[in-house]
Amino acid sequence: MKKSLVALALMGAFSGAYAQSSVVIYGTLDAGLSKRTGTTVAEGKRDNNKLGFRGVEDLGSGLKALFQLEIRYEPDTGVIESTTRPLFQGQSRVGLQGDFGTLRLGRGLTAFQETSTAFEPWSGMPAVAGYQTDLQVAGYSSDPLSAPGNSGNRFSNAIFYNTPVIAGIFQFNATIATKEANGNAAIVGRGTTAAPQFPANTAAQVSPYSLSATATTGPFAAYAAYERNAVETKLWSVGASFKPINELKLMGSYQKQDQDNSVLINPVTKAWLIGANYTIGAGLVRAGYGQKTPDNALASPAIAKTKQFSLGYDYNLSPRTYLYVDGTRKKATAAATFNFYSVGIHHNF
Amino acid sequence: MKKSLVALALMGAFSGAYAQSSVVIYGTLDAGLSKRTGTTVAEGKRDNNKLGFRGVEDLGSGLKALFQLEIRYEPDTGVIESTTRPLFQGQSRVGLQGDFGTLRLGRGLTAFQETSTAFEPWSGMPAVAGYQTDLQVAGYSSDPLSAPGNSGNRFSNAIFYNTPVIAGIFQFNATIATKEANGNAAIVGRGTTAAPQFPANTAAQVSPYSLSATATTGPFAAYAAYERNAVETKLWSVGASFKPINELKLMGSYQKQDQDNSVLINPVTKAWLIGANYTIGAGLVRAGYGQKTPDNALASPAIAKTKQFSLGYDYNLSPRTYLYVDGTRKKATAAATFNFYSVGIHHNF
Amino acid sequence: MKKSLVALALMGAFSGAYAQSSVVIYGTLDAGLSKRTGTTVAEGKRDNNKLGFRGVEDLGSGLKALFQLEIRYEPDTGVIESTTRPLFQGQSRVGLQGDFGTLRLGRGLTAFQETSTAFEPWSGMPAVAGYQTDLQVAGYSSDPLSAPGNSGNRFSNAIFYNTPVIAGIFQFNATIATKEANGNAAIVGRGTTAAPQFPANTAAQVSPYSLSATATTGPFAAYAAYERNAVETKLWSVGASFKPINELKLMGSYQKQDQDNSVLINPVTKAWLIGANYTIGAGLVRAGYGQKTPDNALASPAIAKTKQFSLGYDYNLSPRTYLYVDGTRKKATAAATFNFYSVGIHHNF
Repeated sequence: MKKSLVALALMGAFSGAYAQSSVVIYGTLDAGLSKRTGTTVAEGKRDNNKLGFRGVEDLGSGLKALFQLEIRYEPDTGVIESTTRPLFQGQSRVGLQGDFGTLRLGRGLTAFQETSTAFEPWSGMPAVAGYQTDLQVAGYSSDPLSAPGNSGNRFSNAIFYNTPVIAGIFQFNATIATKEANGNAAIVGRGTTAAPQFPANTAAQVSPYSLSATATTGPFAAYAAYERNAVETKLWSVGASFKPINELKLMGSYQKQDQDNSVLINPVTKAWLIGANYTIGAGLVRAGYGQKTPDNALASPAIAKTKQFSLGYDYNLSPRTYLYVDGTRKKATAAATFNFYSVGIHHNF
Repeated sequence: MKKSLVALALMGAFSGAYAQSSVVIYGTLDAGLSKRTGTTVAEGKRDNNKLGFRGVEDLGSGLKALFQLEIRYEPDTGVIESTTRPLFQGQSRVGLQGDFGTLRLGRGLTAFQETSTAFEPWSGMPAVAGYQTDLQVAGYSSDPLSAPGNSGNRFSNAIFYNTPVIAGIFQFNATIATKEANGNAAIVGRGTTAAPQFPANTAAQVSPYSLSATATTGPFAAYAAYERNAVETKLWSVGASFKPINELKLMGSYQKQDQDNSVLINPVTKAWLIGANYTIGAGLVRAGYGQKTPDNALASPAIAKTKQFSLGYDYNLSPRTYLYVDGTRKKATAAATFNFYSVGIHHNF
Repeated sequence: MKKSLVALALMGAFSGAYAQSSVVIYGTLDAGLSKRTGTTVAEGKRDNNKLGFRGVEDLGSGLKALFQLEIRYEPDTGVIESTTRPLFQGQSRVGLQGDFGTLRLGRGLTAFQETSTAFEPWSGMPAVAGYQTDLQVAGYSSDPLSAPGNSGNRFSNAIFYNTPVIAGIFQFNATIATKEANGNAAIVGRGTTAAPQFPANTAAQVSPYSLSATATTGPFAAYAAYERNAVETKLWSVGASFKPINELKLMGSYQKQDQDNSVLINPVTKAWLIGANYTIGAGLVRAGYGQKTPDNALASPAIAKTKQFSLGYDYNLSPRTYLYVDGTRKKATAAATFNFYSVGIHHNF
């Protein structure tokens, strides 16, 4: 996410005597070609594609007002992400920043989801070769009660709070959402088809929330996070990274999902992953291996353990633009086992 | 609505020798928490949320070309307004401005709706505590023949004309729309279910139009307006404001809706409201009271009179950013009677 | 398409040490009034309405990274184009430009469609008076397997390549798309209703591709193009233009569509058109005549030959803004024969 600054001036035709203002337009356009076992060559993306607008207003006395709006889209067809997600799927948030930290309202990544991406070898990109959308969340969804097709790592109707960095090392983050209904389809869960546990457009019984803490000192970084979603699924996750030399970052995480409130059998899923990023000249090598293990994964091929090995390479043409190639092998149930290869270009603006 | 000016230059890669150009990006992000009788705490908005693009081109000889495009969205979920409205719900207009006034084509607020907001204590914001969406229009909709979910205060397919300010006091405004069909659902009205008065996607029998006049002199301002929509409902409205001291603005309006062409019984609704804005330091107090009275409101509890009392407070952190708190009591039919409280942040960019 | 440059700077609050960046915001707002035989007066457009974002990054050594995102919308109602098309209907493309030419990925006009518009008297605008959407493509669609309502002159999931201009005269362009399914409705074609030739959301049997070549020298220009779409319809087209004097451009084209793979009878359609653009002071006169002839057009009134004569006039208020008036007479089957008149304003920003 690199930025271009929309320059500022007072404008005669429309404006009064306002403080100088700025809107930053930024974004990402990432497109490539891919081949997955059993499918035709397809055009797609490695990263989220963004077109965003944001700004910071200095209110004096160390206080700032912040806003950010981020459109997400599919580069190969020009539609909004998944054709059904909110226009500002990326985020729509407004708030204040000061000595007390940062407090925002709106829609965005939960504290857990925003924290954990720094400990994932594909930098939290939703690449098929990456781990963010499946193994790093142990199959968990932050937002099961939104409309079908919505993303699984955000809260709508939420309050977002981040402390300042404390003692140069620690930061704490919290997100809490209202119980408002967001247009979900009926979810049977522990109910029946006639009386689903969560009927269509149901409101949450409890407020979803998410907590995370990070510690960063020298070459070490670590996080711990806990989250509970609107159907009372719980997730906790810990992770760490270490840079033995400047060019190498090693990382790993462990996470456990507990769906006891909405799943009748085998409610617990555990997952772990390890990975590395290695800088070599203008290149960056990404590597990772991880496993996701549902309860009783060994007892039935229908609930198999997932194993994923991935290798990728970025070649930087500039600090804003790189070419990439990814390869991954994912082994799960017979139907969900595949190889995947992709090559593309990633451009920030 | 404050603005940031996108600075201008000729750009080598794409451009020829064009006149210097400018696009202003502007917008509002307003989010808050609210509590309404009988519902859970919700996140929402007080004002419309906007992301807009506009510009003015000087054509010489006092002539200017104008354009404006305004996206509307919900800050708490990131979707476009109401999830179903046009992308450029706010407006999409282009036109010319000169000695003759301003002439524009496209979609936008009608002459009546644009004029009356200056005489409403919540500045025409669609806040629950405000009066713009219900009492100040006596329940009237400017656009009954657009697709369900569309807003009720705009014309699509319209021509917008504003005179210059005459003698430093008067301005006249007119909007007229074509009869084009805009995707409405069937409206039974004076028809039957089998033969609705306005079948689905019906074209208007007459061109909708809207007229308003304003007079502003010293501390006094007043307006009068008349509008007829696509189902031949008529609305007229008058209002005035007065500033006895610089910090205080008093205002009031009266409006009458006549739905005789599309409603079988009790076609007339009358409404009035009074309000005040009082500036005190960095704060602004908003207060209002109003009533809306359908025909025979006293004869049946199902068509009760509406009474609304509201009190609000803005605390300005800067000319672009304020915090607010609103409280309102609305009394109508038993089902439509409620208290409502909200607190939030309003940021212009 | 004229442009405003969003000025550039490094921004403290969010940015690291990136190369200087730029996003250009550009667009068109064109709205007017029109009257077609047998319909009420309507508000509409002559040109595509655009709001776009693009940028060029200099990567050194003559290499550049390019991106472009273009929203399309209807000015009279504020909705996205046709209410159903992709948000970035105009294009969403990213790529590299260098000595080898320009290589891009994403969605955009095919090589044929992008080339031929320069040889059409309405400059490729989708005006009713223009020829681009019907006669200049002989009724052909570049994208029959996308969702209903999608545009007919673009490829999604495509690779776009343009050579540099060779010897100051020649340029070659190629577009190839993957076979991915894009949400089409079932197309019976040579199949049956029970077993349509192209079932709903079908993938292409072959990769669609498009080729074009242009030659430009002094007052002469010419092109040749060949394209095959996802249902294996073939189109070829040739055209030329000549400027006997600087104020006058004469042009013509011929095109042939062959739908043999998906149509049972009369698969071939031929079309030609001639036109002129004449600059007179601040004005531009546009004129054109053309015919489209399906197989057996003379044998049946249901498959009549189309004849179209059009005359238009632009009056430039500035290099970015003009007023226009168009008139056209289109004669085809009885139901498709009409006169059409329009007047409007066209503003680039």
